[in-house]
Amino acid sequence: MSETTKFLLAESQIPTVWVNVLPSLPEPLDLPLNPQTRTPLGPQDLAPIFPMELIQQEFSPQAEIDIPGEVLDVYRLWRPAPLYRARRLEKALDTPAHIYYKYEGTSPAGSHKPNTAVAQAYYNKRAGIRRLSTETGAGQWGSALALACQMFGMECTVYMVRVSYDQKPYRRMMMHTWGAKVYASPSHHTHAGRAVQAAAPDSPGSLGIAISEAVEDAATHPDTNYSLGSVLNHVLLHQTVIGQEAKLQMGMAGEEPDVVIGCFGGGSNFGGLALPYVLDRLKGKGPRIVAVEPAACPSLTKGAFVYDFGDTAKLTPLLKMYTLGHDFVPPGIHAGGLRYHGASPLMSHLRKLGYVDAIAYTQVPVFDAALQFARTEGILPAPESSHAIRAAMDEALAAREEGRPRTILFCLSGHGHFDLSAYENYLTGKLQDYEYPGQDIEKALAAIQPVTA
Amino acid sequence: MSETTKFLLAESQIPTVWVNVLPSLPEPLDLPLNPQTRTPLGPQDLAPIFPMELIQQEFSPQAEIDIPGEVLDVYRLWRPAPLYRARRLEKALDTPAHIYYKYEGTSPAGSHKPNTAVAQAYYNKRAGIRRLSTETGAGQWGSALALACQMFGMECTVYMVRVSYDQKPYRRMMMHTWGAKVYASPSHHTHAGRAVQAAAPDSPGSLGIAISEAVEDAATHPDTNYSLGSVLNHVLLHQTVIGQEAKLQMGMAGEEPDVVIGCFGGGSNFGGLALPYVLDRLKGKGPRIVAVEPAACPSLTKGAFVYDFGDTAKLTPLLKMYTLGHDFVPPGIHAGGLRYHGASPLMSHLRKLGYVDAIAYTQVPVFDAALQFARTEGILPAPESSHAIRAAMDEALAAREEGRPRTILFCLSGHGHFDLSAYENYLTGKLQDYEYPGQDIEKALAAIQPVTA
Repeated sequence: MSETTKFLLAESQIPTVWVNVLPSLPEPLDLPLNPQTRTPLGPQDLAPIFPMELIQQEFSPQAEIDIPGEVLDVYRLWRPAPLYRARRLEKALDTPAHIYYKYEGTSPAGSHKPNTAVAQAYYNKRAGIRRLSTETGAGQWGSALALACQMFGMECTVYMVRVSYDQKPYRRMMMHTWGAKVYASPSHHTHAGRAVQAAAPDSPGSLGIAISEAVEDAATHPDTNYSLGSVLNHVLLHQTVIGQEAKLQMGMAGEEPDVVIGCFGGGSNFGGLALPYVLDRLKGKGPRIVAVEPAACPSLTKGAFVYDFGDTAKLTPLLKMYTLGHDFVPPGIHAGGLRYHGASPLMSHLRKLGYVDAIAYTQVPVFDAALQFARTEGILPAPESSHAIRAAMDEALAAREEGRPRTILFCLSGHGHFDLSAYENYLTGKLQDYEYPGQDIEKALAAIQPVTA
Repeated sequence: MSETTKFLLAESQIPTVWVNVLPSLPEPLDLPLNPQTRTPLGPQDLAPIFPMELIQQEFSPQAEIDIPGEVLDVYRLWRPAPLYRARRLEKALDTPAHIYYKYEGTSPAGSHKPNTAVAQAYYNKRAGIRRLSTETGAGQWGSALALACQMFGMECTVYMVRVSYDQKPYRRMMMHTWGAKVYASPSHHTHAGRAVQAAAPDSPGSLGIAISEAVEDAATHPDTNYSLGSVLNHVLLHQTVIGQEAKLQMGMAGEEPDVVIGCFGGGSNFGGLALPYVLDRLKGKGPRIVAVEPAACPSLTKGAFVYDFGDTAKLTPLLKMYTLGHDFVPPGIHAGGLRYHGASPLMSHLRKLGYVDAIAYTQVPVFDAALQFARTEGILPAPESSHAIRAAMDEALAAREEGRPRTILFCLSGHGHFDLSAYENYLTGKLQDYEYPGQDIEKALAAIQPVTA
């Protein structure tokens, strides 16, 4: 075995634009709605918490948007990211399939999240904003934004779900190292947080509460804006550097993928890899595109395609998306980054139109795949990313059964250095395999109130 | 700022040889001595625990040794490693110096250690060995060997110092994930371990005890060999891929370093970067070469250049090296990988001959540097590697004072993802700054018994 393992681009090949599928959609996206008036949002509705350049990107009709030089300068700290051919995994699976993966874990924060955090910090800085607030669960997004704010000399306040704040101290320490202030949520720093604590002094917190705190913080401080790590169009736009690089690298490998796979929480790493391929699909060619979600939180595979809130407290705009209902609380699976009740409206739309497929796995087979990957390819994958590995391996095993090659490309969105206790649980047989919480889903879906624009 | 930040080699530019300085030395190395007979070791003395190909490398007169294809195939999982120009750090320091760093933290284990672990596993496998045993402190080396054994289908047994086993579970879990057996040392699995436990039931363990256990395990099982992560010539030989790549990359940058810097524990990352430059020095040109050690364990700067044992229990051969005495127990600084009483005989020899300089820092200024690096360059450095950052920053500050440029190259040997509690201690003012333990050093040095070959 001496064939190429990694496909490495030169620094000059980092993409200089983000690609935007909005103008190429066969049917336009349904617009977000103002939560009070239930009428379509205008840019001014978002101005209290987002800078105008990001709001424009959210609705942009331009097919390409230039990446500012200052953002590229930070991307250069880790981009271009490598594309690997998983030769050792292929051999272990005895498959005729070729498996490629785009690895985003080489960023300082260890995932794809800085691709958008850096852009968001830049545009906010340029708009005169001094501080960004955000929420984080296990800490992937919070640490990415802490890094990005540090790069542009901004302050960063992170509301971290209390149970993670207490149980997962390493990501919190990482945010401190990059200069962020981190509060356990519910906190005493916001009305929303104090209200929750008054009602439930021992509240472990939730992403919904933390979002409410971060949004309130931004809305009540003129020098502060809010920043979101997934779901919205401009976030997925920034992530398209992943897919653009992967296309160049697949070209170096002399192959076209038959199937493109990504794990799916809010949709940002999946969209980042998939959207440049979606543009091909919209022209009638291109690969199958498969989103992989946890069976414990199956928005794309079991949810309803309706208007719903992005948070539990109903502070956010109403978004047309696949959702399990804003009251849905998924079980505590280790892939914390995939525990979101909703889904990117853009990727939901593409799923509805048939350009994107979706499948779901429980976590034990996902960890089976993670372990085999770690023991063949070396890299310890994040539990989130391991959903994509499971699907890629199943594609490769299907190719073996059929006795026909196929070319598989997936996004390895991050490393699992802060998830080793999950591996230990798996190795010692303590990992619980949650079934589809069918009744919970039905109940949560029933609670969604019908909204039409 | 849009100049190049990273200098990236193609996969085809991974070195295909290891470079060996032994035949170029102006005076030969003093040979290791048999601990019983005190006569120079022959290859057969090492055969019970090392395969013959590694023993031959230990004493090789060849200037270059081919890297086997199977080893290169594993190197390809992360090599070539990137060389960075630290433009953001330069700007923060307002220095005319150019600072470059070779980053070895992209390996799956997060440090340079797999460069030799993979080679050692390969040669042992080829010699028919089924299992490797080793010791580890905080776990950097143990995790590298666990990975390497997994890549060649070998078993791996790691004796991990008990206090680390209990307090630093993440590296232990990483070893489990890669399939290794990990025992807290002192263990019940060896005579040495049982003897310590009989005398001191609550022993927290030490690297010296763990070495004794691992060596005994290998010596008493014909299918098992022992593996060491630093100090010996063949280990440093394998690490020369670091310096060879760095030279190519400095060529891409169009610069020659004025000074080459590495942190120093046993000497493996330092030797890996420095030895290709030592070859230039031996020809009368080339940069200054500076080893940076912790003031809490200053073997090169405060030790004696004498024959001493590599372990506390006096089981290893006697090595001519800078040593603080095999009884020296350094304070519990966070840079656990630099807490070794001795030093590579090869690097000691080069230091004695004047080809290598050495300096020492206490840990607070080292963490000052680590934090500034993390906040400018993004990457969270390991506490060990941060010693090199401190020295590089001081070179850059000296250049600013002099108003003259200089070109600085250092090895960033690993990331600090498993050292975040040390950062948190630093940030909360809890980090203790150990002074030179002058009396301890004098006492330990006095205990060394003079040995002559």
